[in-house]
Amino acid sequence: MERPRHQGMAKNTYMRWRLPLICLLWEVAMIILFGVFVHFGPEADAHWEEEKHQMNLTSDIENDFYFRYPSFQDVHVMIFVGFGFLMTFLKRYGFGAVGFNFLLAAFGIQWALLMQGWFHSFQNGKILIGVENLINADFCVGSVCIAFGAILGKTSPVQLLIMTLFQVTLFAVNEYILLNLLHVKDAGGSMTIHTFGAYFGLTVTRFLYRPNLEQSKDKEGSVYHSDLFAMIGTLYLWMYWPSFNSAISEHGDAQHRAAINTYCSLAACVLTTMAFSSMLQKKGKLDMVHIQNATLAGGVAVGTSAEMMLTPYGSLIVGFICGIVSTVGYVYLTPILESKLHIQDTCGIHNLHGMPGLIGGIVGAITAAAATEEVYGKEGFIKAFDFTGSYKTRTPSIQGGFQAAGIVVSLLMAFAGGTLVGAILKLPIWGDAADENCFEDDIYWEVPEDEESDVYHMHNPDKAASP
Amino acid sequence: MERPRHQGMAKNTYMRWRLPLICLLWEVAMIILFGVFVHFGPEADAHWEEEKHQMNLTSDIENDFYFRYPSFQDVHVMIFVGFGFLMTFLKRYGFGAVGFNFLLAAFGIQWALLMQGWFHSFQNGKILIGVENLINADFCVGSVCIAFGAILGKTSPVQLLIMTLFQVTLFAVNEYILLNLLHVKDAGGSMTIHTFGAYFGLTVTRFLYRPNLEQSKDKEGSVYHSDLFAMIGTLYLWMYWPSFNSAISEHGDAQHRAAINTYCSLAACVLTTMAFSSMLQKKGKLDMVHIQNATLAGGVAVGTSAEMMLTPYGSLIVGFICGIVSTVGYVYLTPILESKLHIQDTCGIHNLHGMPGLIGGIVGAITAAAATEEVYGKEGFIKAFDFTGSYKTRTPSIQGGFQAAGIVVSLLMAFAGGTLVGAILKLPIWGDAADENCFEDDIYWEVPEDEESDVYHMHNPDKAASP
Amino acid sequence: MERPRHQGMAKNTYMRWRLPLICLLWEVAMIILFGVFVHFGPEADAHWEEEKHQMNLTSDIENDFYFRYPSFQDVHVMIFVGFGFLMTFLKRYGFGAVGFNFLLAAFGIQWALLMQGWFHSFQNGKILIGVENLINADFCVGSVCIAFGAILGKTSPVQLLIMTLFQVTLFAVNEYILLNLLHVKDAGGSMTIHTFGAYFGLTVTRFLYRPNLEQSKDKEGSVYHSDLFAMIGTLYLWMYWPSFNSAISEHGDAQHRAAINTYCSLAACVLTTMAFSSMLQKKGKLDMVHIQNATLAGGVAVGTSAEMMLTPYGSLIVGFICGIVSTVGYVYLTPILESKLHIQDTCGIHNLHGMPGLIGGIVGAITAAAATEEVYGKEGFIKAFDFTGSYKTRTPSIQGGFQAAGIVVSLLMAFAGGTLVGAILKLPIWGDAADENCFEDDIYWEVPEDEESDVYHMHNPDKAASP
Repeated sequence: MERPRHQGMAKNTYMRWRLPLICLLWEVAMIILFGVFVHFGPEADAHWEEEKHQMNLTSDIENDFYFRYPSFQDVHVMIFVGFGFLMTFLKRYGFGAVGFNFLLAAFGIQWALLMQGWFHSFQNGKILIGVENLINADFCVGSVCIAFGAILGKTSPVQLLIMTLFQVTLFAVNEYILLNLLHVKDAGGSMTIHTFGAYFGLTVTRFLYRPNLEQSKDKEGSVYHSDLFAMIGTLYLWMYWPSFNSAISEHGDAQHRAAINTYCSLAACVLTTMAFSSMLQKKGKLDMVHIQNATLAGGVAVGTSAEMMLTPYGSLIVGFICGIVSTVGYVYLTPILESKLHIQDTCGIHNLHGMPGLIGGIVGAITAAAATEEVYGKEGFIKAFDFTGSYKTRTPSIQGGFQAAGIVVSLLMAFAGGTLVGAILKLPIWGDAADENCFEDDIYWEVPEDEESDVYHMHNPDKAASP
Repeated sequence: MERPRHQGMAKNTYMRWRLPLICLLWEVAMIILFGVFVHFGPEADAHWEEEKHQMNLTSDIENDFYFRYPSFQDVHVMIFVGFGFLMTFLKRYGFGAVGFNFLLAAFGIQWALLMQGWFHSFQNGKILIGVENLINADFCVGSVCIAFGAILGKTSPVQLLIMTLFQVTLFAVNEYILLNLLHVKDAGGSMTIHTFGAYFGLTVTRFLYRPNLEQSKDKEGSVYHSDLFAMIGTLYLWMYWPSFNSAISEHGDAQHRAAINTYCSLAACVLTTMAFSSMLQKKGKLDMVHIQNATLAGGVAVGTSAEMMLTPYGSLIVGFICGIVSTVGYVYLTPILESKLHIQDTCGIHNLHGMPGLIGGIVGAITAAAATEEVYGKEGFIKAFDFTGSYKTRTPSIQGGFQAAGIVVSLLMAFAGGTLVGAILKLPIWGDAADENCFEDDIYWEVPEDEESDVYHMHNPDKAASP
Repeated sequence: MERPRHQGMAKNTYMRWRLPLICLLWEVAMIILFGVFVHFGPEADAHWEEEKHQMNLTSDIENDFYFRYPSFQDVHVMIFVGFGFLMTFLKRYGFGAVGFNFLLAAFGIQWALLMQGWFHSFQNGKILIGVENLINADFCVGSVCIAFGAILGKTSPVQLLIMTLFQVTLFAVNEYILLNLLHVKDAGGSMTIHTFGAYFGLTVTRFLYRPNLEQSKDKEGSVYHSDLFAMIGTLYLWMYWPSFNSAISEHGDAQHRAAINTYCSLAACVLTTMAFSSMLQKKGKLDMVHIQNATLAGGVAVGTSAEMMLTPYGSLIVGFICGIVSTVGYVYLTPILESKLHIQDTCGIHNLHGMPGLIGGIVGAITAAAATEEVYGKEGFIKAFDFTGSYKTRTPSIQGGFQAAGIVVSLLMAFAGGTLVGAILKLPIWGDAADENCFEDDIYWEVPEDEESDVYHMHNPDKAASP
């Protein structure tokens, strides 16, 4: 079904050698680096029996696996089904949404195991991995999935793999600065994952600005069933977000508390999203775009503070506000970003991850600054903020200041990294689609003959006979 | 696409002020009440370190979080994806099914945390919450999702939020009567969730009887893909039901046993459902309505007894019977309920939750009455039925009697509550749809231009060019 | 919509008495056998309190339930949603894919509990079951789901129930030979589940060869949305495979290690699948069939070795190879199998389970043979391979030999069993569809009036009015 080309120069989107080459190159590099560096950590190594004696553990249940594996699996579902299906809302880009998300995440987790391993799990020349590393790798890739949302439908898989390589690298550097140098708390990643991922992606999409994208406008919408597929993504993100925010918190009360706070924030967020979705439409009808996205902002915005003593009450307030901010963003801000700033944000990640991520960083800073020994208990206070060693004398208000600094650093890293990657991706060699072919699966995928064609055949029985 | 109105008075379904108002009102009320009442329980509070010493716990793994969080997440999926997608079977009400279920459940869990908290977790003027409270809140909302099934497609979101407020309240009262006053066991909620939820919903839908609903009959069916979406809901309910029935049982053997019994009952139920679905159709073909629903009846019907020594054998028998009862109900009873009793039950909750819930209550009463110290062991017997304190002298047969009383109380509460709520929802101010617009998303939702339209465009290339 | 019959003898696919009869017969048999044999194991029995004292356990958390239940639920999802939806890719066989998978698995797990129970959990005339039995039953049924993939769309539900009965029986025998007689390790079932299941299914489909199947060729493809439904299955299989391979490993490091190895292998497999899917198509476009299936081969191929010290590095290599082998298989081998060997393999299970299963067996044999006390530690070495009792003197290289023997035994059992079952299923009394009606739901299901019909009505408003 050839369409008339609006532009003279149809782009070369032929992937046959480019995509295999980069996939194999990346993967061979992973194998070599894993061979040199990656070993099992003590809790996954067959020497565990001896380890147990040394650590004075009496039972296998003390293995970190049992503390974190259920949360890991929930996070895993969020990355692959949650983000993947959330982006299937486009009527003809479902394969690309799920499939490319699958590809970049599968590569990204390997590279993240290495990058984060060098920074955080490096001992005697070896990276020692366990279930917590798997969670962190998934987290890191989460930020790439977020950035993918901004450029969804406008990039080739080759571009995505290049972006993943760079973004994972920069993520790990930023994370190291925040967690190790600034000694910032960010268990659910409001800053490291959401703020960084969103503004990185927005910078990249600014570089890839397509002034004639309205040529694909008819494909940049949903159909009835694609909206239902997207709701699968939404609901899995929403339901498992308590696991996301609690997955790498300290054992015991911190994990428990993080899950409760996130549960509360998300619940409140749904009500204000529905309220404003209806209120901001002349006809008062609900808009699936808001329900699919803004309902999740509450989870983003307690990413930093969920493991702190935010309280269920505070969580409800954060969720309340974020549902409003995010929905209002979709209605008013997204069009302005495109028209004034030339930022074309396919999934509206600025509303779902950008602003809520910033709010999350701020809420975290305030919650940390407001911490007292009375509220946390003497031991709990030290444990919650890890005020030990060289941080023994840090006070809550100073911690709050460092938390705020973490937001700024994440933003700067996102802009700088996004600029670098945006410039690279703009090179005309990566096989991205022409403006009139964006949001269309059949550029990169074998798309089956359509249901529509079936209809045609059914009403034309003669045709059905001939293959 | 305007259709001719069959009735003179088209209803005012404009939601723009009504829905935002009630959402914001409800949520602000939640925030205030949470601020006054809700605190972290000892296992989620930062004082946990001190708590551990007091409770003589040596490891964080003893935190209730690790006993129950995986089950909680499974239950959470059942409420939001399970119930939400189960109801997407209607061809043009998928947004309403998933979206309104999402809305009412997100509000309901907050209100349930308060209502159940006042009854069960109230200490020194504070509600202390932990993971078990989250599960119970989800359970409570489950009963609202059930009732929603009866009125699916015929009510406005405002009506649903009002129903949720009342039903959660009454659920908590009923639960308090059963668990605390009657000292009844009902871990999987055959009585408190299913019997109460179903007969409550049936009473409400009786009040909202629409004599001219056949005007929407063409929309009260499924299409091929909507049936597949519904199967996602079915399977998640089916697979996670063992977690549902074991989620709040005592640690150890009781949780273990409840999961096994439920697994067995559900497996048997699938076979009798298939058998009778085929047998009751003249052509012998299977009906998706039965597969989507009746296969779950086995989980409902062991809700009370799963944690008892029902045995896998007994569970198979219960599942066997319920698959038959439920399927027969769909074929013969549902039409009679509508024609004779004016009960229009969109999802057939009477077959899936009503009758199996009653059976579950009865099976629970019998299993309790038949309990012996020999079967349970001396300690196990006391632990299983909590025959301590003022219940020290209660015998199994007396317990069986109280269990039976629990069924009656649940039924009475359901009828009384359903009458009250049905009367309120009948007021002509809540924006429900006219008879000819039931089961149609575009009353309350922005519905995207259709795939069908695409077809039209494809066969009319001229049209496709003009935006 | 009557179609002209290409063959004179239209087959009798009337299920009304055959399907109910077999369902009820099978289920009644289960109830009787469960009544005679199945009891709760010590960790699920109400005597657990006393058991705890005897086993010197201080906490309920030591109950095996907490070690394995989260993994069990993941495996459960793989069997019912994973396999079920993976097979919904066919445009008009979604009900059959999900529904028959549901039916055969629900029956199969009951029969597997008995068969495996007699072999492995039989004490004093009783089968004692716990959560590990549930996992093993799901595993066993997994091999039936695999075989179902080969004959998808070509068999009646009655045939499937007969196949399930035999295959579960033979699975249990084969498993007993491998695990108990040969003392082979196979925690993730590369041999017992995948190799056995695949070659069993391929043998059956060889017997059921339909020379005129091209009459249904137009239905043996996907449509856009059916491919997205299939991706739900793919992703759940992919995400939860680490749980699958670790579910029944020893507590502690073995479970932990198995999850990490599987995670790595699967990640690598995605990249080589994408690379070769693009490379092997002239146009360089990705093919959903490969993405849906070959990305999973990495999980199959570390099924035996994942709990061993395969290392993340080794896992990446295995995944790398299997993505290639599997994709190449889909492109070149599947057509040859059909044309030369008359093996019609609907889902391509030979590429996803057959070859990767064999590779998995071989990798397992090599990994076992290469094991040293240095790598595993003294205690870890004995624990990993259970070199105790009469196997005290077995060396790694001998173990490797027995592992290799396990592959051969599994293959022989598969061919012999497949021959037996294929011959039985060929009898003309089971109600399978005629060649021109394969891959069509409306032979066995009430299929709702179509979306297509809606379109028709929309364009013919007169028709829409008349019911």
